[in-house]
Amino acid sequence: MILTVTLNAALDLTYRVPHLVPHASHRVREVTERPGGKGLNVARVLAALGLPSTVTGFAGGETGRVLRALLAADAEAAGPDGRALVTDALVTVAGNTRRTVGVVDETTGDTTQLNEPGPHITPDEWETFLAAYRELLDGQVRAVALCGSLPPGVPVGAYATLVREARTARVPVLLDTSGEPLRRGLAARPDIIKPNAEELAGITGTAEPLRAARAAQRRGAHTVAASLGADGMLLVTPDGAWSAAVPERLTGNPTGAGDSAVAGLLSGLAEGLPWPDRLARAVALSAATVRSPVAGEFDEETYTGMLPAVRVRPSEAPSAP
Amino acid sequence: MILTVTLNAALDLTYRVPHLVPHASHRVREVTERPGGKGLNVARVLAALGLPSTVTGFAGGETGRVLRALLAADAEAAGPDGRALVTDALVTVAGNTRRTVGVVDETTGDTTQLNEPGPHITPDEWETFLAAYRELLDGQVRAVALCGSLPPGVPVGAYATLVREARTARVPVLLDTSGEPLRRGLAARPDIIKPNAEELAGITGTAEPLRAARAAQRRGAHTVAASLGADGMLLVTPDGAWSAAVPERLTGNPTGAGDSAVAGLLSGLAEGLPWPDRLARAVALSAATVRSPVAGEFDEETYTGMLPAVRVRPSEAPSAP
Repeated sequence: MILTVTLNAALDLTYRVPHLVPHASHRVREVTERPGGKGLNVARVLAALGLPSTVTGFAGGETGRVLRALLAADAEAAGPDGRALVTDALVTVAGNTRRTVGVVDETTGDTTQLNEPGPHITPDEWETFLAAYRELLDGQVRAVALCGSLPPGVPVGAYATLVREARTARVPVLLDTSGEPLRRGLAARPDIIKPNAEELAGITGTAEPLRAARAAQRRGAHTVAASLGADGMLLVTPDGAWSAAVPERLTGNPTGAGDSAVAGLLSGLAEGLPWPDRLARAVALSAATVRSPVAGEFDEETYTGMLPAVRVRPSEAPSAP
Repeated sequence: MILTVTLNAALDLTYRVPHLVPHASHRVREVTERPGGKGLNVARVLAALGLPSTVTGFAGGETGRVLRALLAADAEAAGPDGRALVTDALVTVAGNTRRTVGVVDETTGDTTQLNEPGPHITPDEWETFLAAYRELLDGQVRAVALCGSLPPGVPVGAYATLVREARTARVPVLLDTSGEPLRRGLAARPDIIKPNAEELAGITGTAEPLRAARAAQRRGAHTVAASLGADGMLLVTPDGAWSAAVPERLTGNPTGAGDSAVAGLLSGLAEGLPWPDRLARAVALSAATVRSPVAGEFDEETYTGMLPAVRVRPSEAPSAP
């Protein structure tokens, strides 16, 4: 199985309003609730691909209870023959799991996002999580994905610790975060990082993606999978560099596209696919997520149609080892 | 005790953001949760004035549980000598109590409001509520306030039914709602309605407040207490008409000012004060709510300082009976 870590899981609320006007009062026409946070999104996409995963991180309070109930319902609905493809290994905390609110403006189609900061994690809760994480790594874990922001109270070097533990357990580790947690995590030498162009520029000071990816490798990442929005993805590995994009310009909702890319990379890793095939899968899943009418879900038909159309090109000769 | 009815109670969330920009992503700096819905706000102000009340209406789901836990904590904190001044008589329903989200823009000071529609109330749940309401009216109720919007599933003539029940039980009844529920409720002859200028114009077709209040009386209201924003309030009773305002122009957050006015009118009724004194109390409480740094709460010092300064003026000779 694949392990995904979401330290700042969320209950994602989507509010549809006729038109969002600052300082006005709005009747919300439709409310949807779903389990959120990057690692939980990755697990949902893996499940849709038929791959089992275990999710860990923190959950607490009434919002945490709603999150876990929805997660259980999703897992039951998605699994074939009643077999749940997503296992809940979240660690219960005293604080209340955060909500995120996405306000969809039905006139413009735009989404305005409001993200709560998350519960305060105590040192004891962090230690409890670390012990649970170590135990999970000792199981049948094919890969681990460390995803998203850190809730208050968790040390800023948390991902460096989690990367080191995974490497000690000889489990391939992908890190998908930003800012200082990414900078610190990088130093612990993760197998893959998956920044977007802005995050990559932020930690390397270099706006040109290929140069920035090389810089990130020098700082510790073995492989850099950079999502470049409409320009697709750039994959820089110790064995070569490739870029890939879908042939047509996409319109839609990019929410969750990055998480689908992570699921694509991990599923390709789990199946032992060559790098260019993993990249194609990540790009097709990403595109199918942008095109899905439901934020954060991917459209299966778009995915299967898109996969053969993804153009993977070598970016340059492999770098020196 | 005073009974307040909130058919569409809410968990009010306040999000503080540095600056709200449509289509952007925002980190919420601070989240506050409190029991919401007009009748619950009225009960909170009554408690601050030392008057006991019972709140009823509907609550359900995880949000309902949070709402009731906060209500219990508030009641415990507010009551003198451990005596709770707010009694929870909410009827449990299967649906999830709605949330409202107020997004405070720290740059402009403006609040953008997002209100969920509320749970669907089944016919059985409505009947259960009606039975509970009748039983409450048979107790020691000095007055009942019917407050706010109707959740989905509740008949649009609900307030007409509740007004009639109160009149049968000889309990003075105040109705504070808008649109069709107000129009229907009016026909059942409530003792007091408390519309704002816009709501009053909406049901009477008359923009001039005094003429509109007279029109509302002809349609069934014994007394009309119209809140006119910065112009204070207009009170048109069978015994005379008065207007009142605070001497200075107020700046602040008007959220909950109308609910404080309702609490002022009811507390004056419960104490048997003459109409002009009830009006002065309503206006001073309203003003103290606008000036409070916390939305929906009133500033006690502002209230006691403001009360003697409220100017009450006869609006014209008493109307013909």
